[in-house]
Amino acid sequence: MNQAIETILAHRSIRKFTSQQVAPEQLSTILDCAIAASTSSFIQCVSIVRVTDTNKRELLAEYAGGQAYVASAAEFLVFCADYNRHQQINPQAQLGFTEQTLIGAVDAALMAQNAMIAAESLGLGGVYIGGLRNNPDKVADLLELPEHVLPLFGLCLGYPDQQPEIKPRLPQSLVVHQNSYQHELDRDALAEYDKHVRDYYRTRTGGTKDMSWSEQITATLNKEARPFMKQFIEDKGFSIK
Amino acid sequence: MNQAIETILAHRSIRKFTSQQVAPEQLSTILDCAIAASTSSFIQCVSIVRVTDTNKRELLAEYAGGQAYVASAAEFLVFCADYNRHQQINPQAQLGFTEQTLIGAVDAALMAQNAMIAAESLGLGGVYIGGLRNNPDKVADLLELPEHVLPLFGLCLGYPDQQPEIKPRLPQSLVVHQNSYQHELDRDALAEYDKHVRDYYRTRTGGTKDMSWSEQITATLNKEARPFMKQFIEDKGFSIK
Repeated sequence: MNQAIETILAHRSIRKFTSQQVAPEQLSTILDCAIAASTSSFIQCVSIVRVTDTNKRELLAEYAGGQAYVASAAEFLVFCADYNRHQQINPQAQLGFTEQTLIGAVDAALMAQNAMIAAESLGLGGVYIGGLRNNPDKVADLLELPEHVLPLFGLCLGYPDQQPEIKPRLPQSLVVHQNSYQHELDRDALAEYDKHVRDYYRTRTGGTKDMSWSEQITATLNKEARPFMKQFIEDKGFSIK
Repeated sequence: MNQAIETILAHRSIRKFTSQQVAPEQLSTILDCAIAASTSSFIQCVSIVRVTDTNKRELLAEYAGGQAYVASAAEFLVFCADYNRHQQINPQAQLGFTEQTLIGAVDAALMAQNAMIAAESLGLGGVYIGGLRNNPDKVADLLELPEHVLPLFGLCLGYPDQQPEIKPRLPQSLVVHQNSYQHELDRDALAEYDKHVRDYYRTRTGGTKDMSWSEQITATLNKEARPFMKQFIEDKGFSIK
């Protein structure tokens, strides 16, 4: 065990922050850490929009489905897949491939996770805001994102004003396969995990929320998942071919 | 500065490993770290296939375009977006949305980057293998991946037998935007960075490789980017709608 691993294993999403600001040199270190991540074939196709404007923050909080901490967190970063830079450098660049969307999403997340861990190692907390994808067109307009720039998710950072329990994750036996995919789901391991999640929710909510993981994802997946996203990313010049 | 940040900033991809194995408890910690990452709406749609079979490793090295370290690294993990598990739990699950592909790619990368940092903090080194996407159908067949499982990238881990220089990344001024996207590329900052990259390659290769970042990405983007990927992911049940 070391500090890096302790930081990673202690992760919980923080949605309530004190009013303390992030020192400029700390933010700079966090951004350096983001940029230090691996990048597919050195393509570096990620941009980060740091939002400090109060009005924009409030609008983003609303676009994300009313997540007030998007407005109140000390820092808010929007991670975008970005091939616009490349097109400015090479106007003949062949863009719009599905492969490039995958690279953009993977590379943005590698960068963001470096930022998250760096921040947490400094005593900050954070939460990812996938909710930006509720209104990706409005987010893109607000941040003036040009073609070939795709807003993927946000990251709130600040000093924690809460210390929630660590949320239990699927066990290794259900996530890690050996040499080939384990086709038959281990129902016993799943039942045990479901009980674990139900206990977590009961404890955390004083009995109000009583739900297993299986029940939760069943409800989630009975609904359409942002069905407008296919058109939106094509409009932005992604996954056309 | 602390150990987590030092680890992150010291990252370089390692492609040459000693024969030393990764201790089982270390691997287990690395996998726990992967699983501790944030997950969009608690969906947990990622599987990891650990490949120990020598024959499969050699085939994967070949599929990745002849990257021998895929066979020789102590550990090789394949990160996959996985909604097959969810479909087994909820046979009525609405799958195939583009949004779900984005979530899969982002969540897989968040997990992988936790694994990378945890490994590096323990003295190991690693490199991502996006080259698996050269032959995604062969990878999927070899690892017996069912429908709704998408192989995204591999991760080699092992004890470093090389200590390459840190590869210079784009500066913050070109990656980080404030409140709105900076439409006009800062050509001065780019020229300085291009010179930096050229110097890095010259030093590293003893003058054999003489290329700026702009030259490199121009060459990369003059070619099609795995044009078969759109069909492949649709065949696997992703981004259909």
